[in-house]
Amino acid sequence: MLERISIPNVMQETSRKFILKAKKIGFVPTMGALHNGHISLVERAKNENDITVVSIFVNPLQFGQDEDFDKYPRVLEKDLEMLESVGTNILFVPQVKHMYPEGFLTTVKVRELSDKLCGAFRKGHFEGVTTVVCKLINIVKPTRIYFGQKDYQQMLIVKQMVNDLNIDVEVVSCRTIRESDGLAMSSRNVYLNHAERKSATILYKTLKHIESLILQDKISCRDVSKIMYKMLSDEPLVKEIQYADIYDVKTLERLDEFKDENLLAIALKIGDTRLIDNLIVERKK
Amino acid sequence: MLERISIPNVMQETSRKFILKAKKIGFVPTMGALHNGHISLVERAKNENDITVVSIFVNPLQFGQDEDFDKYPRVLEKDLEMLESVGTNILFVPQVKHMYPEGFLTTVKVRELSDKLCGAFRKGHFEGVTTVVCKLINIVKPTRIYFGQKDYQQMLIVKQMVNDLNIDVEVVSCRTIRESDGLAMSSRNVYLNHAERKSATILYKTLKHIESLILQDKISCRDVSKIMYKMLSDEPLVKEIQYADIYDVKTLERLDEFKDENLLAIALKIGDTRLIDNLIVERKK
Repeated sequence: MLERISIPNVMQETSRKFILKAKKIGFVPTMGALHNGHISLVERAKNENDITVVSIFVNPLQFGQDEDFDKYPRVLEKDLEMLESVGTNILFVPQVKHMYPEGFLTTVKVRELSDKLCGAFRKGHFEGVTTVVCKLINIVKPTRIYFGQKDYQQMLIVKQMVNDLNIDVEVVSCRTIRESDGLAMSSRNVYLNHAERKSATILYKTLKHIESLILQDKISCRDVSKIMYKMLSDEPLVKEIQYADIYDVKTLERLDEFKDENLLAIALKIGDTRLIDNLIVERKK
Repeated sequence: MLERISIPNVMQETSRKFILKAKKIGFVPTMGALHNGHISLVERAKNENDITVVSIFVNPLQFGQDEDFDKYPRVLEKDLEMLESVGTNILFVPQVKHMYPEGFLTTVKVRELSDKLCGAFRKGHFEGVTTVVCKLINIVKPTRIYFGQKDYQQMLIVKQMVNDLNIDVEVVSCRTIRESDGLAMSSRNVYLNHAERKSATILYKTLKHIESLILQDKISCRDVSKIMYKMLSDEPLVKEIQYADIYDVKTLERLDEFKDENLLAIALKIGDTRLIDNLIVERKK
């Protein structure tokens, strides 16, 4: 039976009791509008812990002023069914006024990593993410917290915060779940109309194409970005390529030479919808 | 018997075990050079909890470039004796390289409150404080954490951070401990030569004088600062008055009218030594 908690102090008190009983808590923070990507995280959390907690909170702090906070999909009833069907124990659905009461003044920031890639286009976004994730961890007190690799930069920044602040939680990174045509699952995919949805496959196609060129030694590191931009801009509905390049998997610096592990990452707009995707390419030594 | 731990992970693992046994942990974070002010915090922590942990860490993050990080008094053997004599259970003494390993990138900041009073004169100081206190709380996992009221702004900022980030700890504020002539105890008092030490009593004298004027209704709120500056600057060894005024106890805004509770606070230099003191003045309704 899925228990639903909305008050932060009640959630914290509940978790405190689990911890006294030595229960392991697996935690999946989400913004709702759940898809199979989220569900795969919940299933993994269930497998690895005694109690599974999912949060749904559309965090205003991580949206820019001209971003889609207001229209972000909110489908709580459908989310509840999905969570119940996979045996989630607790759904934590706090209200904005309880997460950010009047007079809220604190920010958690991970420097450098937060200003690169998506951070360069979404000012303050990752500060909003680290601040809310820090709060959620303190409330839910998880043993393990689960993030999808689709938001690679987010996962990396949360790991850095957890290490830097000695937060007593294991950050688990899970592979990206894709539609049958390769599009990475995302709550924002519902924004796409039929034509846009078809054209959105270009992100993964480009990543896989570059991967195969790299693995076959048919491309130099310095040409990666150029060829990615070419493929992406040949797709008529792609409106704005924010970045498409190869990066260091730890520092997110642009690479001039291949390493053993390489991050290919893309952010672009199709219509008004911003899409991101990435792939880790491992070169054999 | 005082147990000494220097590795953050070992401290965290130790605290985790106490929590599984439902032990209450009282925690006093310090920079060492302990005096009776610290000891009164430790005694209170001992009275209110099962386990008492004291940390000694001269936190480089909270010192400005032209401040006294290098010459800050370090007297570990004497500190150990004092802690042992009051029955401290655990001393946590981490090294800088373990608290801030290479590649450390995270900052916890409390806006507004951190930029006022001492924050206006010590850029980045309170960010250094909140970042290290957040780390120490995550490592030591205390039920209660103890701060002296002498550092009123620090205590207020830590309380704000704890509330904002839902950190599961009670912040306990303890009264300022003073020498027999009224000087607030501080590790930095050892910097004062004989003449400076005598002249340093001017802070508390000024606070008490203003308090009596307020309680007798003999001063208007707008005159408080002027009279404080006059008293302080009449003391020949006072070199630089950074602030001396009356403030809101919650927001640290300057007051134009008295409230039920009022914060009188002073920061100044005597010789090269920066001293602070404060007093909460409660007016009868």
